[in-house]
Amino acid sequence: MPHIDEHALEDIAEGAVILGSGGGGDPYIGMLMARQAIREHGAVELVTLEDLDGEDLVLCCAMMGAPTVMVEKVPGGDEVVHAVRAVERYLGRRAAATMSGEIGGLNSMMPIYAAARLRLPLVDCDGTGRAFPQVHMSLYTLHGISATPFALTDARGNTVMLETVDKQTTEILARTLTIAMGGVAQVAADAATVSELREATVPRTVTQARRIGAAIRAARNQDAQPVETVRRAAEGFLVFEGRVEDVERSTGGGFSTGHADLDGIDGHKGRHMRLDFQNEFLAARIDGDYVVTVPDLITLLDRDSGQPITAEGVRFGYRVAVVGIPVTPKWRTSAGLGLAGPRCFGYDVDYVPVEERFG
Amino acid sequence: MPHIDEHALEDIAEGAVILGSGGGGDPYIGMLMARQAIREHGAVELVTLEDLDGEDLVLCCAMMGAPTVMVEKVPGGDEVVHAVRAVERYLGRRAAATMSGEIGGLNSMMPIYAAARLRLPLVDCDGTGRAFPQVHMSLYTLHGISATPFALTDARGNTVMLETVDKQTTEILARTLTIAMGGVAQVAADAATVSELREATVPRTVTQARRIGAAIRAARNQDAQPVETVRRAAEGFLVFEGRVEDVERSTGGGFSTGHADLDGIDGHKGRHMRLDFQNEFLAARIDGDYVVTVPDLITLLDRDSGQPITAEGVRFGYRVAVVGIPVTPKWRTSAGLGLAGPRCFGYDVDYVPVEERFG
Repeated sequence: MPHIDEHALEDIAEGAVILGSGGGGDPYIGMLMARQAIREHGAVELVTLEDLDGEDLVLCCAMMGAPTVMVEKVPGGDEVVHAVRAVERYLGRRAAATMSGEIGGLNSMMPIYAAARLRLPLVDCDGTGRAFPQVHMSLYTLHGISATPFALTDARGNTVMLETVDKQTTEILARTLTIAMGGVAQVAADAATVSELREATVPRTVTQARRIGAAIRAARNQDAQPVETVRRAAEGFLVFEGRVEDVERSTGGGFSTGHADLDGIDGHKGRHMRLDFQNEFLAARIDGDYVVTVPDLITLLDRDSGQPITAEGVRFGYRVAVVGIPVTPKWRTSAGLGLAGPRCFGYDVDYVPVEERFG
Repeated sequence: MPHIDEHALEDIAEGAVILGSGGGGDPYIGMLMARQAIREHGAVELVTLEDLDGEDLVLCCAMMGAPTVMVEKVPGGDEVVHAVRAVERYLGRRAAATMSGEIGGLNSMMPIYAAARLRLPLVDCDGTGRAFPQVHMSLYTLHGISATPFALTDARGNTVMLETVDKQTTEILARTLTIAMGGVAQVAADAATVSELREATVPRTVTQARRIGAAIRAARNQDAQPVETVRRAAEGFLVFEGRVEDVERSTGGGFSTGHADLDGIDGHKGRHMRLDFQNEFLAARIDGDYVVTVPDLITLLDRDSGQPITAEGVRFGYRVAVVGIPVTPKWRTSAGLGLAGPRCFGYDVDYVPVEERFG
């Protein structure tokens, strides 16, 4: 069986930024926590759904809250154990493994942290294949897997268990509670059996993140073609190269919303790109025409180093490559596009897979 | 066994206003709900702790939220059943009876409503002997009975279970959730065995409320001495008679805070009373000297009808009798005064039992 040791963990964290499509939350604090847990409790076994029994219970672990709070108040550790135990107690059975609800960003790390602390394996899959701004935008929703029982815990030892009628209510109550609990909470939720998860997950996304992360590391270490190295590892397509001329951003309701304007360079000279984001990059237009949209992934790479640049981190003057990555086919169904297609974000355009325009 | 039928229910609701010490929330909406439940499911059996087995589990039921919202959105009923079932599921055992956490005001009614819906008996006791502004001010706190597991449910079918490290956190999270759940929630909490409850409850307060309520009804029906009739039933002391000259009130943080100024009439002519309230009446001063304070009860009666007037309802021009009612001796210990004595509300005075000044 493969294992996630410290080095694999660091690669997964870097690759998860790419799979975050510009959002998903900075994995750094989660990586620190997971690294400490691995140092104390040993490497985490990485399994596939096929390695488990069909009736085995798998839980997603996640962190909710404001990144600035997280950095100041690094969670102590026990709270994720409390969250998992609360769900187990509610259901009257133990979890056989943990996994990510979404592989993109911070929530790639929390299940590894929990797995190390609980001595459980991590399943090499996730429920989204990227990051989305809203909790209900996951394959679990498409396949009728409830987010509840949904446990939140804080560093003081408080536990809250939600059992809601829909995922929107879960999200509203969980966000409200996270603020009341001091700004950050650990979550265990999305309990499902291995049989239920087969359709509702994207397989091998932990391994995918690790492979991309290794490429980012290689690109940083004196690569002649850093963007190309990372693009290839991410199996993405070069969409645009440009210089950031303007960024507009507003924050509210838990979202960082805005757009970045790019002037083309090199092969894209004379052309203009606008990138919209709501935590994640949602849509890219060239000279007014949509060229990549959700649910495909849009990622920004620093032209000189190949390092990913998030929507939060993009600044005037950056010279970037815009890479589009095909999302899992599971989002390309009419049901998938109905939940997370361009129209769900207010774009009145049909979804066109990125590889049809740039492949 | 005595039973609570519709008529008893209406008397209990009226008497609970007196035991609310000017606050506790208007029982009216709860009375309507409980009356409907009694009509559908039959009268509720009223038992004492002695009638139950020492290991029997008793739950408190309550409603949280804004009274104006309650009037607009009368809860459907099932939510209190969901709340009780959630606590039962959490604890792995069934409740043998319901009771009031505080007899004063609205929360006298919700346990009756729940008892009728669940076909359980109601215990003739409560955990406070009056109403207090804050959830942690109860005999349960004095005797180490946890408020959690604390279940909140709403009319849409959402359930939240809190397990907190202290009662202040329970209160903060519950109030936050109540707002997020639409402004009103049903609560089941304070699970305890009959053995644990013997010290932590005030016995026979449901019967006490009923007796006072019957007196209020009698006073309304052409009584020559309405105030005296109600005072006697409440076993209280006449503290002041006056006309309301001024009311100052501010609302915030879930509290209605302020004071009412009274000019004396009849035997109190030439004297002045100030009544402070924070939801409940907390302290009464005559010409600047404190004469009644928490934890004793302070109630206002309309001079002409004997009907109680709440802190929320007191208005300029009302002619009122101020009646002080001795609180249960369980609050008169040093521990009790440490939790709900005058200093807990910012009054730098020693507690003097009302009967020592007016008996």
